Amino acid sequence: MTVRVGVIGAGMIGQDHIRRLTEVVTGAAVTAVTDIDQTRATQVAARVGAVAPPTGADLIGSPDVDAVLVTSWGPTHAEHVLAAVAAGKPVFCEKPLATTAEDCLRIVEAERAHGRRLVQVGFMRRFDTGYRRMKEVISSGALGAPLIVHCAHRNPTVPDGYTSAMAAQDTAVHEIDVLRWLLDDEIVSAQVVTPRATRNRFDHLKDPQIMYFETASGIRIDLEVFVNCRYGYDIQCETVAEEGLVRLPDPASVGVRTAGRHGTAVPQDWKDRFADAFDTEFREWIAAVAAGAEPTGPSAWDGYAATVITDAAVRSLDTGGPVVTVDMKPRPALYGGTA
Amino acid sequence: MTVRVGVIGAGMIGQDHIRRLTEVVTGAAVTAVTDIDQTRATQVAARVGAVAPPTGADLIGSPDVDAVLVTSWGPTHAEHVLAAVAAGKPVFCEKPLATTAEDCLRIVEAERAHGRRLVQVGFMRRFDTGYRRMKEVISSGALGAPLIVHCAHRNPTVPDGYTSAMAAQDTAVHEIDVLRWLLDDEIVSAQVVTPRATRNRFDHLKDPQIMYFETASGIRIDLEVFVNCRYGYDIQCETVAEEGLVRLPDPASVGVRTAGRHGTAVPQDWKDRFADAFDTEFREWIAAVAAGAEPTGPSAWDGYAATVITDAAVRSLDTGGPVVTVDMKPRPALYGGTA
Amino acid sequence: MTVRVGVIGAGMIGQDHIRRLTEVVTGAAVTAVTDIDQTRATQVAARVGAVAPPTGADLIGSPDVDAVLVTSWGPTHAEHVLAAVAAGKPVFCEKPLATTAEDCLRIVEAERAHGRRLVQVGFMRRFDTGYRRMKEVISSGALGAPLIVHCAHRNPTVPDGYTSAMAAQDTAVHEIDVLRWLLDDEIVSAQVVTPRATRNRFDHLKDPQIMYFETASGIRIDLEVFVNCRYGYDIQCETVAEEGLVRLPDPASVGVRTAGRHGTAVPQDWKDRFADAFDTEFREWIAAVAAGAEPTGPSAWDGYAATVITDAAVRSLDTGGPVVTVDMKPRPALYGGTA
Amino acid sequence: MTVRVGVIGAGMIGQDHIRRLTEVVTGAAVTAVTDIDQTRATQVAARVGAVAPPTGADLIGSPDVDAVLVTSWGPTHAEHVLAAVAAGKPVFCEKPLATTAEDCLRIVEAERAHGRRLVQVGFMRRFDTGYRRMKEVISSGALGAPLIVHCAHRNPTVPDGYTSAMAAQDTAVHEIDVLRWLLDDEIVSAQVVTPRATRNRFDHLKDPQIMYFETASGIRIDLEVFVNCRYGYDIQCETVAEEGLVRLPDPASVGVRTAGRHGTAVPQDWKDRFADAFDTEFREWIAAVAAGAEPTGPSAWDGYAATVITDAAVRSLDTGGPVVTVDMKPRPALYGGTA
Repeated sequence: MTVRVGVIGAGMIGQDHIRRLTEVVTGAAVTAVTDIDQTRATQVAARVGAVAPPTGADLIGSPDVDAVLVTSWGPTHAEHVLAAVAAGKPVFCEKPLATTAEDCLRIVEAERAHGRRLVQVGFMRRFDTGYRRMKEVISSGALGAPLIVHCAHRNPTVPDGYTSAMAAQDTAVHEIDVLRWLLDDEIVSAQVVTPRATRNRFDHLKDPQIMYFETASGIRIDLEVFVNCRYGYDIQCETVAEEGLVRLPDPASVGVRTAGRHGTAVPQDWKDRFADAFDTEFREWIAAVAAGAEPTGPSAWDGYAATVITDAAVRSLDTGGPVVTVDMKPRPALYGGTA
Repeated sequence: MTVRVGVIGAGMIGQDHIRRLTEVVTGAAVTAVTDIDQTRATQVAARVGAVAPPTGADLIGSPDVDAVLVTSWGPTHAEHVLAAVAAGKPVFCEKPLATTAEDCLRIVEAERAHGRRLVQVGFMRRFDTGYRRMKEVISSGALGAPLIVHCAHRNPTVPDGYTSAMAAQDTAVHEIDVLRWLLDDEIVSAQVVTPRATRNRFDHLKDPQIMYFETASGIRIDLEVFVNCRYGYDIQCETVAEEGLVRLPDPASVGVRTAGRHGTAVPQDWKDRFADAFDTEFREWIAAVAAGAEPTGPSAWDGYAATVITDAAVRSLDTGGPVVTVDMKPRPALYGGTA
Repeated sequence: MTVRVGVIGAGMIGQDHIRRLTEVVTGAAVTAVTDIDQTRATQVAARVGAVAPPTGADLIGSPDVDAVLVTSWGPTHAEHVLAAVAAGKPVFCEKPLATTAEDCLRIVEAERAHGRRLVQVGFMRRFDTGYRRMKEVISSGALGAPLIVHCAHRNPTVPDGYTSAMAAQDTAVHEIDVLRWLLDDEIVSAQVVTPRATRNRFDHLKDPQIMYFETASGIRIDLEVFVNCRYGYDIQCETVAEEGLVRLPDPASVGVRTAGRHGTAVPQDWKDRFADAFDTEFREWIAAVAAGAEPTGPSAWDGYAATVITDAAVRSLDTGGPVVTVDMKPRPALYGGTA
Repeated sequence: MTVRVGVIGAGMIGQDHIRRLTEVVTGAAVTAVTDIDQTRATQVAARVGAVAPPTGADLIGSPDVDAVLVTSWGPTHAEHVLAAVAAGKPVFCEKPLATTAEDCLRIVEAERAHGRRLVQVGFMRRFDTGYRRMKEVISSGALGAPLIVHCAHRNPTVPDGYTSAMAAQDTAVHEIDVLRWLLDDEIVSAQVVTPRATRNRFDHLKDPQIMYFETASGIRIDLEVFVNCRYGYDIQCETVAEEGLVRLPDPASVGVRTAGRHGTAVPQDWKDRFADAFDTEFREWIAAVAAGAEPTGPSAWDGYAATVITDAAVRSLDTGGPVVTVDMKPRPALYGGTA
């Protein structure tokens, strides 16, 4: 059975996922595409033999759409996800689930009312082989309880439109999600401090930033976010536990010795670094949808949690760096909680 | 357009490729399966909604088969590949192309007569990211001309049926193919010597073996083949050139520090080590077939060359380790040669 | 000319340095040894043909002692160093220079009054090849200005007598000194937070601890101190700068592949890890003394600074983790300052 | 007790060892220096307060010389070593022990006649920490019996005077000695083959060369000797055994990430790469001499063996690459043999 996917949002990331659904992942077809730019929607749809309904609501309601992929502008996510849930259709929403905690909660509530999980949020790191092996090591208990996690998230450069708050909202949010999952623990406070700034940034931007998080069980996380590091796209993660530590590997790269140096290439682009993770993410999502099962990836609750924690980090940044308690609702039973 | 593939040979490797064509690679379907064991063929075919014609010839002749995959027992390869070429259908043949140089040449001649390439041989390393990066580095000329290649091919263990000649025929053959491609050069002599044997082998087996190859331009290759190395499946390759060297990376693996050691896992299985290469191999083959293009992977000529070089290595092993000249025919124009 | 060294304190570290001065470093002899345990002093002295004067003061005053090495119990350091300065003799004092900032200042003042540097403090990391190379890279300017330093200082285990304050006083003090030197910058605030504690500690101990430091130029340092990490003695340091980063190497260690793992040994002991640094430290100190030059290693001022910063860290730990401003006097001209 | 060393040969290597004996190693003094250039001898001697006798014989006979260091031109080694043995004085001879097997044997016979070992030959790799750890791993038996050793010995460049035979005599001789010791096995045959030559060499030189050795127990060694590799001084050694392998580490070096690359420095000079090994070599030699013990380093027999094996390698090179049997006498009891 082929899962017929309708895609809302035909920009860069939308087109990349359409390529993935049509060329990389088996068992899927893209049958409908919408975009705020109708011309673009029509062009992109034509390439894959899909139709271009006038609105997201039309797409969601189409009998030729089994599942919905939301890759539109962030502020429109909640509306489309809610509509998909209302229609009882599985929906994959690129991060963020919604731009406000309130909207995230509305989705959570709608899903609870529906009674089973329909929503998956696009945090792809949970599908990366390195993180998965790290989780296996931690979960095995061989190293005892995790105590500390050291992380770095570095981009070579960002455009002028990238704001200081986006360091948490767009960048650190990936670590926020993957660490909650990796540690099977909840983040209860956030703090953001700003070291000396790099000269290689636009003036308005605080870069680098260092974020500190604490979990319910007392694990402390430090995360360097440095989005103009120049040398490459570099993701580091090391979990220190009672009997040892486990570290995310650098991507395999041929070693070259020449001119007095032994060197390996550092990735330059997040799309390359996590290409396999994106593929796996969609492969597993399509498989779950095809099986009529609940999705196994990040839930609406995870999307809510990420937003709430991100909000706390931004508040810390905006108010001079205090520790900000994360104000999270009790976790509903649908998501493994007791509420 | 979906490429409809007929699969001849439904054993372990055949089934793995069927899974790949149906679950991993887009744009392909398996429409027919045959096997010497008709019951097995029927069962495997049923799982993917394919038919199970009585013979390979029937499968090749079927109008529902666009392309043929040969994964049957090695001695039957030539017959099926020749039939596919006769039918003018693209055919992917697992290594070896044929078990004798004569049969390989028959296929080469048939393909020449046909006038364009139809055959691809299943040497998957050319599709491995590490080897591809190494080839880019070498081809860029930044390191000057390659002079020496050091290789190791180690398996944790082999079953009793694995013979001393299989070290060349089944194991080293992967390096033979990938090095010819990597260096864009031809192997002109082979030699096999036997160090002290490991205690961890069946008595009849010479293990480890060391193979030396020389290319037309004078590059020398040493290849350790050690198929009972116990510790894992380990593939090493280092090309030394005039201005430096380039080395195949070990697969990325989380680092763990515990109990006084920093450690990473060594793969245990060739299917894991080259899983991505297999996927890419089939993805590119299906894309070429779908486009009506000649395949870009190893050709019938490469299959012939591998067999002739392997034969020379086995002759060296069987006669006490002399240098044996590779007796290769001139390369036809169809394969980039002048004959 | 042989430098005749008198050693005050014949305990484990004293004996190790006596071995170093007599067996490893050329140009030195140990001519006198004292200890609070006179019998031990006599025995240790006898082994190297030295005398055992009754008191440190006698030793310092002896015409057969050119330079003094203080390796006695920390609270006695100040008295002996002051006596050596009063006698105008070069003195090497194991860390800490003194156990209170006031005593450190008294030494600084005495040295200023003397008019030239006589004191070197035993922070050996400045003599480690890895840190020296890192300093070269930073100082070259090739990476731009340093912005962040990530450090870890892990010991496999500590005895019951090790207190929570010692994490700063005895352990982190090494990073405090080496980072001031590495960055050529002053630490202006300290903060200590406590993650979830390891089960592998004595109950009274807060372990691990994380320390945050900020420098005058805004560089932020995070330092994990984990003294019951179990797996080994592990020192990590990574300096992130505007154009890239530089990382301290792990000690070279043979790689072993067996039983599915590639592994290297992690050092178990600080004396092994920094054995070469200790040797170099004493070699350079003896060379400076022999040349009649001022010592080039950590100064009395550095000893004072380390104590003041350590005090701030302990105050943070003791008061629940606030950021504590380092209350440091202006740096005198003798130590490169303007006071 | 200070060991008073007389040094025969005040060239570059002689002066470096004089520095080592006077500045690095404790318990030694250089009391006499000779050289074929009497002026140079006088100058070098003056620097360390030594005398400059007219001849090596005078130096050896001097009552102020306890032990002799021979660092003169290779062809003069035998004469001086024989004179030292005749005088019953410990003698450290830089490699080679002698330039012909016959002269080496004369020294062996003289030492046998003397009845105890006096001679140590200057193969410093046995004193390198990496090789020592590798030997510990092999000797522990944890990896089973060694079967194969892969080596590379690369220099960035060599001067015009370096001949093709020197690849064995001056370069590979280090591996020949250290592998005999590492494996506790004897080399019984040698073969040298020549790959395509690098453009970066003087025309008369065959570079690179590949040498194959076989030991009495059947271990096979391949050694790449590449003395114009350009990128650095690089020593590789990997021993493959029945249950796993052990590999010499690269020297520790700070890692730098910048401009898209992660890189570490490759040493450029053998004196840097093996500086610690040279120091340890002399430290242990002086300790043995001071204790009146036989030296523990490479013996006269090892010097003879290295020369005989080197001769076989050169013969192979000169005669087109055949396997040449090493023609070694039976090992005398003085050196652990039965003759």
